[in-house]
Amino acid sequence: MNYDIAVVKGDGIGPEVVTEAIKVLDKIGEKYGHTFHYNYVLAGGAAIDATGKCLPTDTVDICKGSHAVLLGAVGGPKWDDLPGDERPERALLGLRKALGLFANLRPAMVFDELADASPLKAEIIDGGLDIVVVRELTGGIYFGEKGTKKTDMGPAAYDIEQYSEGEVKRIAAVAFDMAMKRNKKVTSVDKANVLESSRLWRRVVAEVGKNYPEVELENLYVDNAAMQLVRNPKQFDVLVTSNIFGDILSDEASQITGSIGMLPSASLATGNFGMYEPVHGSAPDIAGQNLANPIATILSVAMMLRYTFELSQEADDIEEAVKKFLAAGYRTPDICAGKESIGTKETGDKIASLI
Amino acid sequence: MNYDIAVVKGDGIGPEVVTEAIKVLDKIGEKYGHTFHYNYVLAGGAAIDATGKCLPTDTVDICKGSHAVLLGAVGGPKWDDLPGDERPERALLGLRKALGLFANLRPAMVFDELADASPLKAEIIDGGLDIVVVRELTGGIYFGEKGTKKTDMGPAAYDIEQYSEGEVKRIAAVAFDMAMKRNKKVTSVDKANVLESSRLWRRVVAEVGKNYPEVELENLYVDNAAMQLVRNPKQFDVLVTSNIFGDILSDEASQITGSIGMLPSASLATGNFGMYEPVHGSAPDIAGQNLANPIATILSVAMMLRYTFELSQEADDIEEAVKKFLAAGYRTPDICAGKESIGTKETGDKIASLI
Ligand SMILES: CC(C)[C@H](C(=O)O)[C@@H](O)C(=O)O
Ligand SMILES: CC(C)[C@H](C(=O)O)[C@@H](O)C(=O)O
Repeated sequence: MNYDIAVVKGDGIGPEVVTEAIKVLDKIGEKYGHTFHYNYVLAGGAAIDATGKCLPTDTVDICKGSHAVLLGAVGGPKWDDLPGDERPERALLGLRKALGLFANLRPAMVFDELADASPLKAEIIDGGLDIVVVRELTGGIYFGEKGTKKTDMGPAAYDIEQYSEGEVKRIAAVAFDMAMKRNKKVTSVDKANVLESSRLWRRVVAEVGKNYPEVELENLYVDNAAMQLVRNPKQFDVLVTSNIFGDILSDEASQITGSIGMLPSASLATGNFGMYEPVHGSAPDIAGQNLANPIATILSVAMMLRYTFELSQEADDIEEAVKKFLAAGYRTPDICAGKESIGTKETGDKIASLI
Repeated sequence: MNYDIAVVKGDGIGPEVVTEAIKVLDKIGEKYGHTFHYNYVLAGGAAIDATGKCLPTDTVDICKGSHAVLLGAVGGPKWDDLPGDERPERALLGLRKALGLFANLRPAMVFDELADASPLKAEIIDGGLDIVVVRELTGGIYFGEKGTKKTDMGPAAYDIEQYSEGEVKRIAAVAFDMAMKRNKKVTSVDKANVLESSRLWRRVVAEVGKNYPEVELENLYVDNAAMQLVRNPKQFDVLVTSNIFGDILSDEASQITGSIGMLPSASLATGNFGMYEPVHGSAPDIAGQNLANPIATILSVAMMLRYTFELSQEADDIEEAVKKFLAAGYRTPDICAGKESIGTKETGDKIASLI
């Protein structure tokens, strides 16, 4: 079978980490006899420089014509002075909407060998941490109507948080399906004591939950969820929440692992289409120096194999190779804790060789 | 001078912790020759039981006629099945709006003796942690228009996040004034890469900041702020943010101290009027057993002396007494780490005796 992948190398360390992830993917192709086709497209800062637009129409079209998208990272100080709606990060919002990527999966896991890197005390993450934040990605206040108006306290600006039953149903189903393959617990996060949209959210999630009698459903207010992630993150299996709460909580969850350079993400549409990218940013300060950790992107490719191509054996292979890499004591600069480290390229080579 | 204080004992452990705080306040009165008058009023669950309403008009009137409000905590399982807008917590929103309490100050500090209780590694909070979250409390999505509508994905519910220049100006001024008395750094938290209301927020905060040339102003996206609070909270002095982001971040900040039973809060109106309450909730599971930690409420009374009555010597006295209490090794059950502890009442007695 042929697999068409649109590739946005992006800005900063994006090109470097994507190169290594493709190296690993090609090794998988060799081993299993798959052919991966890469359609390189521009988005973000690189697209602004080349075309004046952060998300050229071509890019969207080619992504739509592919089976999946692999994205490095976008943005950097070079484009910081552009107005909000012309900045590189806008390309992300544009891609999510244009491609219908309503479900953002962000695993936050602690690798045994890297447990020391967590800012949390050892006893709190003792025995490992493995949670997934399922964030709604094409609705809510990100895409609601926004504007300005006059008030008696001066000019004002507003943004509308809105959720429909259909939107909540489909993201809840993703969360429950995921929980069925994991530890059968879903924690839905909202602010139902204040927000009308959260009350709808809570009601619909409970309705969807009825189809999953084996899965335990818990509701948590977002303020409490932000506390519990620090106090006792191991209580969670799958967290499901709105676009804005998911933005905040998934970043908090990433941070408690202490190894953000290791964390992949998937943004899925209906069907098998998905966009895959590392959780970390474009890190312009270390770009082009062979210092970046490509593992988050390599693990994003594993997610692509699992969710879009349904090649779970191949995905397991990559995840195993990363574990072996760590177990053998190899470290990139961000996770070496002051000890010896190897470069971006060498990390890709090593992981590919372990497949 | 006479000081009129409206007192909402509230539910759960509310009455117990308020009793001890008043004990301490009376000791201050004795020492300095002040007379504090207490106007006991009902709000929350106790008000629902007595009057059918969580916030009787009488309560609002008496609060308005007082110089300050002292509140224990509201809510509990007894009222959990009531519809959203009749629940005890609604009284808080009602009081905030009716009394114009637009500025919520939530200090998150680690007491030397209790540093071990933090879920964060010792090196992260080494040397102490002392930040204040300044949360806008009468605007934003909490009080914006909300409702339901039809969409092509089914029935939907919405809430409007909105900020006017006037609202942002006054909360920013509170934050900068606070920073001037502290370490001269303000971090404004928003989501200006997505929200129109955040772009207005960021612009107005910068304008206000021009009047405080000595104060360093930094802008952070809310997702990044949620990470930084875990990664390196000591970088912060004063954080200022919207109602909903402040709800999330102030709870996260409380949690990283590990001693939520120690943390006070103030909600201020224009002028000197304020409402003072502990950050913790009503803890129904330990209510009425002399197990609750009254220190958060005692420190809330210290904030009342400082902000509403401008009695800073008296406020210092209370804070000193709490420090002495801890230094002498006294602990309530929540902070005793399995060692010996004393009760709610004995804690109040002891702290009063140290004044
Ligand atoms: C860059 C920004 C618009 C984006 C978001 O808020 O969704 C980012 O924070 C993320 O989480 O992918
Ligand atoms: C009870 C709830 C409405 C309230 C809020 O969200 O403001 C609480 O979480 C708080 O922070 O005081």
